Parts: sequence; structure tokens; C-alpha cells
Amino acid sequence: MSLDPELTREDGARVCAIANALELIGDRWSLLVVRELGFGVRRFTGIQRNTGAPREVLTARLRKLEQVGIVTRRPYSEHPPRYEYDLTPAGQALVPILRSLRAWGEQFAPRRLT
Amino acid sequence: MSLDPELTREDGARVCAIANALELIGDRWSLLVVRELGFGVRRFTGIQRNTGAPREVLTARLRKLEQVGIVTRRPYSEHPPRYEYDLTPAGQALVPILRSLRAWGEQFAPRRLT
Repeated sequence: MSLDPELTREDGARVCAIANALELIGDRWSLLVVRELGFGVRRFTGIQRNTGAPREVLTARLRKLEQVGIVTRRPYSEHPPRYEYDLTPAGQALVPILRSLRAWGEQFAPRRLT
Repeated sequence: MSLDPELTREDGARVCAIANALELIGDRWSLLVVRELGFGVRRFTGIQRNTGAPREVLTARLRKLEQVGIVTRRPYSEHPPRYEYDLTPAGQALVPILRSLRAWGEQFAPRRLT
């Protein structure tokens, strides 16, 4: 069950793809956004409703996820400007990990509504 | 690749084991702590060095992970009081998920040192 240790960088912290990955998606809102896109929810209002993320937080997370290549954005209305979001291949590759996380949550995280 | 939508709660946000799981481990420090314990690092100073987590943050995360049943703590010295940490079965069940996250990071997250 052990992971293989990796090289350490000069200040001692590990150089590790897990840390790199968590820099991109290591907050719960980002992963909940990926979850919603995995569910097929494409629009801001739906993602906001289903995640419960504050509007500004969601805007920032979507922008970051787009910048790092996990999410795509395309306009579906010009007046007013409105966008649909989807997962890139990198984002789609997170879906099985979220599925594993869900199985873990079902087994180990107490079910609660808060 | 789609996830199955789940029931929604009254305010509209999803009741979802992914969200429940992320309430327990949905920040990068917690997952990096699980990573270190998965590597076999047992002591505070080692975990701190390898994660780069600020001392107070690490103390808080270890306490929370212990409270929610992911980490165990046992004393190995009484004067001064010192503790060793390890994963519970719930924590060990996260290790394969971290392995998947590492594979994802290796494929999709640019390798960087910051």
C-alpha cells in the first residue's frame, strides 16, 4: 500500500506529481466543478446551484480551471454574453478519480447535509 | 464517463458522497499529509519538511484527520510529549486514490517546483 518516495527539492519538500496535481485541483470547489461537468451540467447557474459555491468563488475557479487546461468555455449567447463549460481530456481523466473518491466517501465519510 | 446525478437537498445543492469526502480531505495539505503517511513518514517534523506545510496548519490538519478517523496518533515519547501518526483503514483506502491522482498529475500537470 506504500507509495514510492520521490526526489526531494533543495528546500526539502518533495517534488511530486500529487502536489502538482493538487496545485491545480486541490480545493473542494474545483473538484465539485469537475463533478458537475462530469454530470453534464454545462452552465454557470446550474453549476452554482449544484455545488453551492459562492458566485465569485465559482467564477475564479472556472477561470483557473480553464487556464490550466481542465475546462473549456464556449459562448452560447452574445447578448447577454453567456458561456457553456465542458471538460477537456485532462478534465475527463479526473472523472474516474472522483468516482473513486465517491466510493471512498460512501464507505468512510458520514452522510450529512451540511 | 458520466457520473450518475444524485438526489438534491432542499436548497438545491447535491447530496453527494464526493462532497462529503471533500469536507474531510478537500484541501491540499490534508491530502499531502495522507501522502506522507502513505510514504511511511510517521513524525511531525518529517511530515512538515516533506509537505512544506506551515506548522500551525499541519497541527490543525493532523488533529482534524484524527478526529474524522483518517489518522491515528500514538505517543512515542513522554518527556517531551511526542507523537507518531499513521493511517487508519479509511486513510489507507485513500492511498490508491492518491496514486491515481499522481498518475493524473504526471500526465496533465506541468512539472514544477513551486
